[in-house]
This record gives sequence, C-alpha cells and structure tokens, in this order.
Amino acid sequence: MLITSLTNPTIKMLRALRQRKARDEQGRYLIEGIRLVGEAIQCGAPLEMIIVAPDLLTSSFAHELVEHYIAGGGRVLTVSAEVLGSLASKEHPQGIIGVGRARYTPLADLVAGVNGWVALVDVADPGNLGTILRTADGAGFSGVILIGSTVDPFDPAAVRASMGALFSQQIARAGWDELLAWRQARSLPVIGSSDRGTVDYRTATYPRPLILVLGSERQGLSDEQLAACDTVVRIPMRGRSDSLNLAVAAGILMYEITRDT
Amino acid sequence: MLITSLTNPTIKMLRALRQRKARDEQGRYLIEGIRLVGEAIQCGAPLEMIIVAPDLLTSSFAHELVEHYIAGGGRVLTVSAEVLGSLASKEHPQGIIGVGRARYTPLADLVAGVNGWVALVDVADPGNLGTILRTADGAGFSGVILIGSTVDPFDPAAVRASMGALFSQQIARAGWDELLAWRQARSLPVIGSSDRGTVDYRTATYPRPLILVLGSERQGLSDEQLAACDTVVRIPMRGRSDSLNLAVAAGILMYEITRDT
Repeated sequence: MLITSLTNPTIKMLRALRQRKARDEQGRYLIEGIRLVGEAIQCGAPLEMIIVAPDLLTSSFAHELVEHYIAGGGRVLTVSAEVLGSLASKEHPQGIIGVGRARYTPLADLVAGVNGWVALVDVADPGNLGTILRTADGAGFSGVILIGSTVDPFDPAAVRASMGALFSQQIARAGWDELLAWRQARSLPVIGSSDRGTVDYRTATYPRPLILVLGSERQGLSDEQLAACDTVVRIPMRGRSDSLNLAVAAGILMYEITRDT
Repeated sequence: MLITSLTNPTIKMLRALRQRKARDEQGRYLIEGIRLVGEAIQCGAPLEMIIVAPDLLTSSFAHELVEHYIAGGGRVLTVSAEVLGSLASKEHPQGIIGVGRARYTPLADLVAGVNGWVALVDVADPGNLGTILRTADGAGFSGVILIGSTVDPFDPAAVRASMGALFSQQIARAGWDELLAWRQARSLPVIGSSDRGTVDYRTATYPRPLILVLGSERQGLSDEQLAACDTVVRIPMRGRSDSLNLAVAAGILMYEITRDT
C-alpha cells in the first residue's frame, strides 16, 4: 500500500523524528539516502524499517538494497515522493530513508581496541560530532563518548557527516564524573587538548588505548577538566586565529596518536 | 537616519548579497557579527560600510568598535532590528554586519611565505572552504588558491567558518592550467592528496614553499591532475570509511607539512 497522505499518523510520527525531542521519546532516528542506508544494513545497525518512494528510487543499487533488506525479513513502507520529501532534511532526497533504533553502549560494555576513544564534552555542533565519528573510524579509534550537553549523534546533520561511521563506532553517553570513575577502574590515560596545554602535541607520548578529551567549540575544557587529564596537549597556532575548528583539531590529534601504527 | 523599511532600495541591494549572483555583480559581501567585523577592521580588510541596529548592539566592545570605525572615516548605516535581521543569514544576529569589498589576489602577486598555499579544485561546500582558510592561517600557510568551480569564499557560511582567516589569508582564483604555468614559472613543488596516492603522508618529504592540492568532496582529483603533482600522498584509512572529511584531511596534511616548524 502506497501512503500518499502527509497527515497519515505513522508519517507524522516519523516526521517528528527530525526533532530531538521526538527522537529521545521514540528512541529512533532517520537515515537519509542510499549510501547511508546501505552502510547501516552492512554494519548490522538495528533498523526498524525502510521508507521508499518508488518514483524517486531510480538506481539499480538502491533497488537491490531494498530487495536484499526485504529478503532478510525487513519491513518496507512505500510512500509517495511528496511524503518522502516531507521526511527528509535535505532537498532532493534520493527516495530511501531508513528508520534506525538509537542505541548507546554503556561505558562498562565498551570494548578497547588498540587506540581508544574520543570523549566530547558539551560539543554543540552536530556536523562536528558526525565528522569526528568519521575521523575516529578512519584513524582506528573504537568510539566516541558523549559527555554533558554534547549534541545528539542521531541528529540528521550528525548522521550525514558521519558518512556511516555512526553505525560502526561504539557510542556511549556519560557524565564527567562517570567518565573519570570508569577511566580509574580501567587505568586508562586521559589526554586533553587545549590552547592552555603545556605539551606540544608532537612531543607528547600517547600510551594506548587512551581517552582523547575535547571540549566545546566555544569554551574548550574547564580548568577542573584539564586538571583531571594526565597530559594536556596544544596544537601550535602560527597565524592570527587562536584555535582550529574542533573536528580539524580532533583529526590532527587522532592521527598523531596513531602515528606509529 | 534610521532605516526601518525592508523595501528600502539600499537594503534590498544589500539583502541580495546573500546570493552569489549579487555578490559577483556588486563585488561585495556581508560580514556578520561583532567578532568577524572586528577582525576585518583589525586586518585592514576593505570595508564599504558597517550596518548597525542600535537596539541589538548591547556589548560595549561592539560600541567601541563602531566608534573606532567612524573615527577612522568609516561609513555607518543605522537600521532597525527587523531590517538587520532581514540581512543576516543566522537567527539572532548580533546587531552588526559589515559590507566588505570582495578581493582576490592575482596569482602573479601572491607572496610566498615559508610554507606555501593550498589549492582547492572544485570544492563544493562553503563550510569546508572557510574551515580550510582557518586551518591554513593556524598552520602558517599564506593563502588559498581556488580552482575550477570551487565555491565562493565570500559566501556567508565560508566567511563564518573562516573565523576571520578570510581577512588575513591571500585568496586567488585560477584555472588549473594557469596554476600549472605559475607553478612552473616559480618552480613550486605540487603535493596532491588522494586515496590513490602512492606515498604515505608521514613518509613524504615536503620542500617548502609548496602547493598542497586537494580535490572536491565527491570526486577528489582527476587522473590528469594527479599526474601533474610531484608527489601524491595518502592518509591511511584504518576503519570502514574510505575517506576523511575534506577539511579534516587538509588539516592533517597542513600540520604534517609544517611539522618541523
């Protein structure tokens, strides 16, 4: 059955997922586009259903993806192009949107890889969060721990910027004190980054696995947070700017930490 | 005189600057917010005027900025909060918008610093371009050369992401062939970046000043463009993703190139 009504109750509930409140209440989120839905399926990310607008779905890769999903027992909701457009956050959607189940890994269940995790304190920009997930995957980190008011990783902008890393990286949420207790229990080194850092990031030693802690775009880490770090590194600023974009700084540090890999 | 009409002809011309077509036609662009306007003034970026909404301008720093600008012979346009809001691309504007004169440096006039320049081929995202300008400033590069269809550096999103680096970095626009001729005339090494690169970015040598060439978010550099590079470096990808965000990759490479600084 093709859903054509913009006011269909299911569609209205799904459309609400563009807002964080509804994502938190429903525990699910939207995954837009062929590539991302394909990544979610390949990574075994929990999907509740796939929404398809046949009129928009022209690529044969997308058709195979949907058939593969149905063959595996997946549920497909068929909608008009207009209805799908009303769910998408981007213009010109590709005709396929996945509905994922939002899932966090409890701190206690995080599995240490070789390198460790990135902890983000009060990070405000979903694009930065998604980009950091993408880089964490690229550099070989295991996951990202979201501290304090850090934005929703299931925000459409974060999902998009992660380019699929959201589905393969471990994602945890914790309070700062919880993070410190966990780090203590597991004897994990904590490396902070700040323009007030005392060690040049190129000369620091990075015993791994470790936790790389980064503060918010505006404030960075507080004095108390910096004091809890084993080492606070600094990236030299050679021009007029006093800081780098958060995702860029995170990338430089993650690749430095894993430099000998 | 306070302008309160949204249809005032000057205001309509300024509002059009949110679109690239009008920016290209008028040769000017908008600089939003206290911090960015302050940076533009400090860097001596050419400003045509400042637009101020007194009702929104509460910080004393902003008032001093405007007084300083007037004392230096600058022109101020006073508008209502509603009119200023109609010019701003962000919600809750800070009550001050600068009107800058868009300015490119011809290739022949580019001044080599120690490290060199970043050349961006067909880069599509203004946020990436602005972030790369910010990182170029931070790492100690001299400027950015925009090749092909690379987006407008005077786009509001690029201006914002640059965090003021737009005003201190040299910005040039050139065709690919022009770039190659200039590089030849000045004997500048060209380093490309690609997932098809043959040299790990950590083991490459970087004779400076150089030109770091990066391709578009979607396509990267073409075979022909890669062939024109002296060295093509590759950043290792250790997870599922096959690439990094362009601005992150640019940051890792710029800081690697300047590692011995």
